[in-house]
Amino acid sequence: MTIDVDAPVPFPSDIEIAESADITPVADLARDALGIPAAALVPYGHTKAKVSIPWLTTLEDRPDGHLVLVTAMSPTPAGEGKTTTSVGLADALRRIGENSVVALREPSMGPVFGIKGGAAGGGYAQVVPMVDINLAFTGDFAAIAAANNLLAAMIDNHLHHGNALDIDARTITWKRVVDLNDRALRGIVIGLGGLVNGIPREDGFDIVVASEVMAILCLATSLADLRRRLGDVVVAHTRTKQPVTARDLGAEGAMTVLLRDALAPNLVQTLEHTPAFIHGGPFANIAHGCNSVMATRAALKLGDWVVTEAGFGADLGAEKFVDITCRAAGLRPAVAVVVATVRALKFHGGVPVGEVDREDLAAVGAGMTNLRRHLDNVRGVLGLTPVVAVNRFPSDTDAEVDLVVRMCRHEGVRAYPATHVRDGGVGAEALARGVVEAVREGRSDMRFVYDDHLSLEKKAEAVATRVYGASRVAFEPKARRRLEQIEAEGHGHLPICMAKTQASFSTDPSLRGAPSGHTVTVREVRLAAGAGFVVLVTGEIMTMPGLPREPAAHRIDVDDDGRVVGLS
Amino acid sequence: MTIDVDAPVPFPSDIEIAESADITPVADLARDALGIPAAALVPYGHTKAKVSIPWLTTLEDRPDGHLVLVTAMSPTPAGEGKTTTSVGLADALRRIGENSVVALREPSMGPVFGIKGGAAGGGYAQVVPMVDINLAFTGDFAAIAAANNLLAAMIDNHLHHGNALDIDARTITWKRVVDLNDRALRGIVIGLGGLVNGIPREDGFDIVVASEVMAILCLATSLADLRRRLGDVVVAHTRTKQPVTARDLGAEGAMTVLLRDALAPNLVQTLEHTPAFIHGGPFANIAHGCNSVMATRAALKLGDWVVTEAGFGADLGAEKFVDITCRAAGLRPAVAVVVATVRALKFHGGVPVGEVDREDLAAVGAGMTNLRRHLDNVRGVLGLTPVVAVNRFPSDTDAEVDLVVRMCRHEGVRAYPATHVRDGGVGAEALARGVVEAVREGRSDMRFVYDDHLSLEKKAEAVATRVYGASRVAFEPKARRRLEQIEAEGHGHLPICMAKTQASFSTDPSLRGAPSGHTVTVREVRLAAGAGFVVLVTGEIMTMPGLPREPAAHRIDVDDDGRVVGLS
Repeated sequence: MTIDVDAPVPFPSDIEIAESADITPVADLARDALGIPAAALVPYGHTKAKVSIPWLTTLEDRPDGHLVLVTAMSPTPAGEGKTTTSVGLADALRRIGENSVVALREPSMGPVFGIKGGAAGGGYAQVVPMVDINLAFTGDFAAIAAANNLLAAMIDNHLHHGNALDIDARTITWKRVVDLNDRALRGIVIGLGGLVNGIPREDGFDIVVASEVMAILCLATSLADLRRRLGDVVVAHTRTKQPVTARDLGAEGAMTVLLRDALAPNLVQTLEHTPAFIHGGPFANIAHGCNSVMATRAALKLGDWVVTEAGFGADLGAEKFVDITCRAAGLRPAVAVVVATVRALKFHGGVPVGEVDREDLAAVGAGMTNLRRHLDNVRGVLGLTPVVAVNRFPSDTDAEVDLVVRMCRHEGVRAYPATHVRDGGVGAEALARGVVEAVREGRSDMRFVYDDHLSLEKKAEAVATRVYGASRVAFEPKARRRLEQIEAEGHGHLPICMAKTQASFSTDPSLRGAPSGHTVTVREVRLAAGAGFVVLVTGEIMTMPGLPREPAAHRIDVDDDGRVVGLS
Repeated sequence: MTIDVDAPVPFPSDIEIAESADITPVADLARDALGIPAAALVPYGHTKAKVSIPWLTTLEDRPDGHLVLVTAMSPTPAGEGKTTTSVGLADALRRIGENSVVALREPSMGPVFGIKGGAAGGGYAQVVPMVDINLAFTGDFAAIAAANNLLAAMIDNHLHHGNALDIDARTITWKRVVDLNDRALRGIVIGLGGLVNGIPREDGFDIVVASEVMAILCLATSLADLRRRLGDVVVAHTRTKQPVTARDLGAEGAMTVLLRDALAPNLVQTLEHTPAFIHGGPFANIAHGCNSVMATRAALKLGDWVVTEAGFGADLGAEKFVDITCRAAGLRPAVAVVVATVRALKFHGGVPVGEVDREDLAAVGAGMTNLRRHLDNVRGVLGLTPVVAVNRFPSDTDAEVDLVVRMCRHEGVRAYPATHVRDGGVGAEALARGVVEAVREGRSDMRFVYDDHLSLEKKAEAVATRVYGASRVAFEPKARRRLEQIEAEGHGHLPICMAKTQASFSTDPSLRGAPSGHTVTVREVRLAAGAGFVVLVTGEIMTMPGLPREPAAHRIDVDDDGRVVGLS
């Protein structure tokens, strides 16, 4: 039997649900649910606010709540519902009497006008105001773009006015950014048109979420820390191969000024009035893929339970959350919710992506290899107690869902079906009770995958062999030279950030299940000295998406009453 | 005797004055000074707000207040203080018991990091919060950039996906924008790097204030009007020479969505708690140079006196205010305050710009030719009663100021010294009384310089001969062809927008005073079909500034308490 979500009326679209939501004024929510006084709230309209950083620093002596990390098995191209599960779980915790808060990434605006539509949950597990969150929200992404692009302008201005630092223009790695899908800006030549227009050189734009400034904002723990990190950014090398930083260009102060409001976390709510911090949204490949440390820390001081999400599957998101975010910010998750779906299990069990809606218990069983590897990693490598959320889709049969739950329990892991997308928080109550039980048992003891003092290569080997099941790591010659240069410049102590496909434990997206013994080949190495990690790129990484032939922008409009339509 | 502003303590900087201001919470200001209920206010923090457009539309039956247009004689490079005079006059009107509101342009962020510093008034005639207003403010400029750049991305995406509209890529006039001074983006080539990166072509970035979207936002009278204007934008021509609009590309709906919040006027206050609408900031050369119609209309419904400013001297700003803004929005100024300075009079009387601080009564008298021409234009051509504000600078002597006042009165024009920069509103009280008297006499009867039905060439001749004192208008061949094309495409009924140097009545910035009999040569014609005017370019127009060798960005920073410093 499938869940009949289409009867008696068609299931409404995300925007229809969101626009008919009854939103509590954010000042009331902040006061009643979190005890935030009006003076500590910086409103952006009546349903969005930032929480003042000076006020948040007064909470430092409070004990932290329990941190629940939501991660996933290796996803299908459609995604397995980490955001909806985070929202549903937070709502469910509140329903069973716990003071919960959810902390999520801010959506990027560019993809909204492309294919994807919004990214603020879905169905009855959404954050609102949905349209605002998906578009300009509180201006954070615009501030990041301004800070990023001011530094870029100052680099080219330095070249134009005599290049006192002796920058080798061919080594400039700092790109400009825009929060749109604009493929024509991927490869450009700037500075054309004669003497007064600067120095011609090859360049390109990335989308805002790919900016190191985004990663910096998300890892900074204070305004002073933000300023220090911005100053550390390496943008180029001199002709004598010395690194050139934003500090060398005198840019970090002005960049900090542009980001001073953006650093404060944004408070909104779920459809069920659970407080939600939506703040920062770095890529999960070339960056760490988690919302801001400022938001998670604020949530931990204000809530007893904080549900937060890490991008992609647990091999990428959970590993980076532990090794980058927790290492930098001193966070310790109490439990890891691993989102699994019947569809993804069938996919990893060998079913083509177009046929995952058909019942296939054998494939579900076969796909368990993927989920089992993630559970082993979460428990055995990262030291976190896993709890599986089986995020139920309309096509799932009861027999399939039961099989997943039984297989997980066979592994000694709690597992619960969850129907929050259709039902809201009530659909995730069993999951919430399971999470609370797991935390009460207190068996999580977070461990890093590698120590700071290991070489960057050894760190890569640790992640590849312990998390990915690989046998070795190989470096292309250019990547190895850059790795050696980065260590020689004193950045060998940094954690690594693997840029790998989310579709497989290996670097080959077509290898489903739990491949073993493969080689992880690093073809490019990038230093993010301000963010505080070294990116090891193993495949093609797209940092500027394009629009499709029929972009969503064609449908997005205002109606006669000024309401936004077509944003799904 | 000069005014001794340096005793007993040094005169504080603009940011020092602004940061020590006692700012009334904007919700209180809105309620107490303007009767705006809390539900009609969209707060951005505690000192900035937007006023809800649906609520403003409920005021349509209220009578309008008196509209005071602040304009100026031909300025020196330093500017003559229109913004400070607007602020000081509004403060003074409130001091003498009138319910006044000031409506001004939003500053562009780019120049803040270059040479200029802030642009929110100065001294004790400022709007606050000064730092916010000069930087991201309420996100309007970011929204304009997003809407502008989404259309640009959709143009290149259309080319990439087969170019069904048959756009001739060489004819694309729609540039991307960024709100920074970034000379390296003036001339670029995009779409490089192979098939997946689109179609290579020459392109360039302008600064946000130069975008037609900025002019559109400032002239739109409703969300529906905004959407219509965005659809009308002409971005290119087909290979068969047909115009291609944003509507043809299906972009106007999504652009409107991006601008829906930005269309609502921003409410802040002066240092003396006079309500201030700061909204929109189009260039005064390739655009009309006034704050938004939404803001001015809102102010006219909420205040008995509305002081607003038009860019550059009266030959440009006042003419465009009447012929473009008032024509489009049905506004009728009751009086025109013409800002004059002793320094500018000496400059037009032949004194080098570096020596205008030395007393020179003869030069002041000689420079009156310039001011007299402006007064004659305001009165005789535009039909508005002029009142002269002599914006006093520290170096002015009493004898010089007296001479200016006497010469104006000899012309039958009220004139008042004003010291609002040093003294705040009290320094402009005489001016305020004079403005009220002039309006009570009721002699203004605004007239357009030309009628809609005249050809674009005849409109140019009307402005050049009647306002500039020129004998004729010449068109370079390319400009004439474009003019004819624009008329053939059905836009001949639009008003014109002259892009001319502000330094002279002529197109030669070195011709001071009141040159006559010159030729105005139009070298380029640009259609702004969405904004609703045709730009006639007579000189070099810089639409993307650069940073200087030592940009202000080097000084701008946060201090240990998180306060912004170095923004002057």
